[in-house]
Amino acid sequence: MEDTLQRLHEIDREVQHLSHVASALHWDQETYMPPEALGERAEQLALIQGLIHDRQTSAEIGDRLAALGIPLDSGPAAVRGPLPESARASALPGAQRAFLRELSRVYLRARRLPRRLVTELARETAIGQKKWVQAREARDFCLFAGQLGIIVGLVRETSECLGYAEHPYDPLLDEYEPWMKTAEVERVFRGLREGLAELTARIVGSGRRVDTRFLTRRFPVDRQRELSRRVLDAIGYDFTRGRLDESVHPFTTRLGSCDVRLTTRLNERFLNTGIFGTIHECGHGLYELGTAPSLRGTVLAEGASLGIHESQSRTWENLIGRSRPFWEHFFPVLRGLFPDALEGVDLEGFYRGVNAVEPSLIRVEADEVTYNLHIILRFELEKAVVARELQVADLPEAWNEKSRELLGIVPPDDAQGVLQDIHWSGGAFGYFPTYALGNLYAAQFFAALRRDLPELDTLIGRGSFAEILEWQRDRIHRHGRQIPAAELCRQVTGESLAPEHLLGYLRGKFGEIYGI
Amino acid sequence: MEDTLQRLHEIDREVQHLSHVASALHWDQETYMPPEALGERAEQLALIQGLIHDRQTSAEIGDRLAALGIPLDSGPAAVRGPLPESARASALPGAQRAFLRELSRVYLRARRLPRRLVTELARETAIGQKKWVQAREARDFCLFAGQLGIIVGLVRETSECLGYAEHPYDPLLDEYEPWMKTAEVERVFRGLREGLAELTARIVGSGRRVDTRFLTRRFPVDRQRELSRRVLDAIGYDFTRGRLDESVHPFTTRLGSCDVRLTTRLNERFLNTGIFGTIHECGHGLYELGTAPSLRGTVLAEGASLGIHESQSRTWENLIGRSRPFWEHFFPVLRGLFPDALEGVDLEGFYRGVNAVEPSLIRVEADEVTYNLHIILRFELEKAVVARELQVADLPEAWNEKSRELLGIVPPDDAQGVLQDIHWSGGAFGYFPTYALGNLYAAQFFAALRRDLPELDTLIGRGSFAEILEWQRDRIHRHGRQIPAAELCRQVTGESLAPEHLLGYLRGKFGEIYGI
Repeated sequence: MEDTLQRLHEIDREVQHLSHVASALHWDQETYMPPEALGERAEQLALIQGLIHDRQTSAEIGDRLAALGIPLDSGPAAVRGPLPESARASALPGAQRAFLRELSRVYLRARRLPRRLVTELARETAIGQKKWVQAREARDFCLFAGQLGIIVGLVRETSECLGYAEHPYDPLLDEYEPWMKTAEVERVFRGLREGLAELTARIVGSGRRVDTRFLTRRFPVDRQRELSRRVLDAIGYDFTRGRLDESVHPFTTRLGSCDVRLTTRLNERFLNTGIFGTIHECGHGLYELGTAPSLRGTVLAEGASLGIHESQSRTWENLIGRSRPFWEHFFPVLRGLFPDALEGVDLEGFYRGVNAVEPSLIRVEADEVTYNLHIILRFELEKAVVARELQVADLPEAWNEKSRELLGIVPPDDAQGVLQDIHWSGGAFGYFPTYALGNLYAAQFFAALRRDLPELDTLIGRGSFAEILEWQRDRIHRHGRQIPAAELCRQVTGESLAPEHLLGYLRGKFGEIYGI
Repeated sequence: MEDTLQRLHEIDREVQHLSHVASALHWDQETYMPPEALGERAEQLALIQGLIHDRQTSAEIGDRLAALGIPLDSGPAAVRGPLPESARASALPGAQRAFLRELSRVYLRARRLPRRLVTELARETAIGQKKWVQAREARDFCLFAGQLGIIVGLVRETSECLGYAEHPYDPLLDEYEPWMKTAEVERVFRGLREGLAELTARIVGSGRRVDTRFLTRRFPVDRQRELSRRVLDAIGYDFTRGRLDESVHPFTTRLGSCDVRLTTRLNERFLNTGIFGTIHECGHGLYELGTAPSLRGTVLAEGASLGIHESQSRTWENLIGRSRPFWEHFFPVLRGLFPDALEGVDLEGFYRGVNAVEPSLIRVEADEVTYNLHIILRFELEKAVVARELQVADLPEAWNEKSRELLGIVPPDDAQGVLQDIHWSGGAFGYFPTYALGNLYAAQFFAALRRDLPELDTLIGRGSFAEILEWQRDRIHRHGRQIPAAELCRQVTGESLAPEHLLGYLRGKFGEIYGI
């Protein structure tokens, strides 16, 4: 059994190295690559993805998993459950069992995807991302529609190849949020939507308006870079194992277990974009960098799920970064960097300004209350696209309709509507719900953190984040993907995912701001 | 035969893609990678080099080359000659014959190297480069000696594996300067050394001193960046297919046929480093970007040899970039960017200043006359190391002795002596001679260019470089590696490599400056 395990670890290690190489190519593509290099970069990525696929699906893995008594039958349900008690491997320590669980999960998923499909997806999405940038710049969905059509075709094929018992969206969602089903998301989102609609109506109905005009004054980007850098240093992001660069769509990526890079986007005429984007990505980065050394470089060196991942970025961006104590500490720094733009603005005015609630068009700039409505919009559209109930050409109109229904406003052009997010251009259907799940997990984890660390607000107000980060590392980060999301949630908070935490947090915070 | 060729092209294409991926990882390592990522990056590079090696040596290539009648016997001489007339492939068009010649050259070389050696070299040199940076910063060879010892061991093993008839340095040189022998380099260098020693003695004996003090005034690096950018634009470097970044040791690398990147190094207290480094790398970049579209992405999309490659960088850096007409055009730009540093300096003073001849310690900052003596120094040392006549531990002392002998000066520390160049840390033994060969080719090509374009100086003086670049593309760049270096030289200049062109050029230029 020793040898079998060791060989599986060797193959996995090669897969992880190749994934890191793909991340390096992707990071470069989004940050520094010259424009004409796109075509070949797509070929390079396709080649690397093909090599990864070869290894993930090798007969060598299958034979060894079978030898360990792990069931590899071909039904879609087979990828779901944990290791059966009957398996020879069930006597192994927890970390090894988790390793085999994830390895077989990846193996079973990958085996169902033809190599051609994997390399075509890599190639077409590399092109798709550039087409999306061009279309967004031109504010014209038509420039993107053709390539998106190709990608949707491949995504639908992926769903069919992976198989499903209930909904064609299930196997796509499962890529990002392992073990979760579409029906469960629908159930959670239903409660969330009602609660948010009610809260939004009360806020709008309060008649109170928060002044946000100062946020669109001039904030020189070099000063914003300096601000980002100082905040990351204070939070505890390790620049010897990472970087901060700029890209059209901010992201965090792991090029190695000691190489986790963030990007941000700076807008001279809107402060929030840069600073909250930076803090958000930092939350992702801290999670990646906090994996226990014993798990590094393995299939377990990843977040438990994207929902859990997003909970970490949201905690830093919103629950900490948009809190009053956070700005008690950083507002003087901010005033020093932007004396002109913040002329006449005091701490309380700033706090309220960055927390103003108003239905708006751009998801990444939305307030904490209406943000999740943006997610519900995307979830419903992409579910329909995957299920062939909605065609690509009809997306802009469907988007605008849903926007009116959920947010009460209609985008004036595609750039502020259907073209605003990068995800579909990258083939990432099934990804959006994890953002809202992240907000739910974040609020639930934060309640547990506050229970364990009653002086939480005092620490944040002092700019002293080490104990918070330590708590996150101990409870969440170090486990990587060893513990599945649902179990991790119970372990950290004592209960299953419960939307009441987020709704309670939002009602408390915004009730105070809006006097309701 | 069609099918056979097509399959060989497919394999080659994958090799080229993987080489470009390795270049991307390497470029990142030298520019933006966070320091702690080094260990894993070394593993990633080792993995990719192993994958390249697998493909270069696959039985599939061997079988197909044999089917085309290409001799694959195992003697070292087998890698030398062109395709024999007897081969079935000899009836193919020139480009296909050249493709098979290079493919079999690579196949025969790679087959002789065990996979372990290839991956170890990749891993150890990635570490070596970082150790070199550290030792150089600390000015202490001891910090680098251990890792260099490991690398030298692997390099000697490489030489033995590849095999040789005359000198163990032959197969290493052949990697960079295909088909050339150590004995030939020795012969050429002998003539060069005598001519240079004589010229240097006359210059020093002239008693005339050129004022260079202004070059070490303060030149703000952001202005130097601006200067580099403007010069590259004027020369015709295509920023949609490349970039300019900064690194400890400037280099040019191809991440794809439409992605050729340059780096430079900026020194606030010495103008020459940045601007001439930038122009030098641009010369390499123009060569890479000028390959004919039909050769792109194949084994032929490379310079004919590193000597030919260096001839292109040297042409731009020295024959054009250090010429009087070049600065007739750019001096006003320079004055605009650095009004303080250039206070009281006129065009003629500047021209003489950047062309001052004086034996000095740092190769990359050496003048055109003494530069080649630096190369001869390295060539003699590394030849002795490879032949086991000189040990790693004795390198600093041997360096200092040779420096006294050739240049008449001794470095005060290792950073200005044996540690100044990156090459050995990367395992690149056999590389240095190509720099001097490049100077020789450059002068010989430039004479041909002047014959074809009699108004050359007028064009340069107007900052009008399009016709020069066109000539280079037509005569040299577009051919890539299709024509071997020696043949290319005859084709462009009508004669074999002849050191007299360089010596004649140097005597003319510096005779005028020094009045001798």
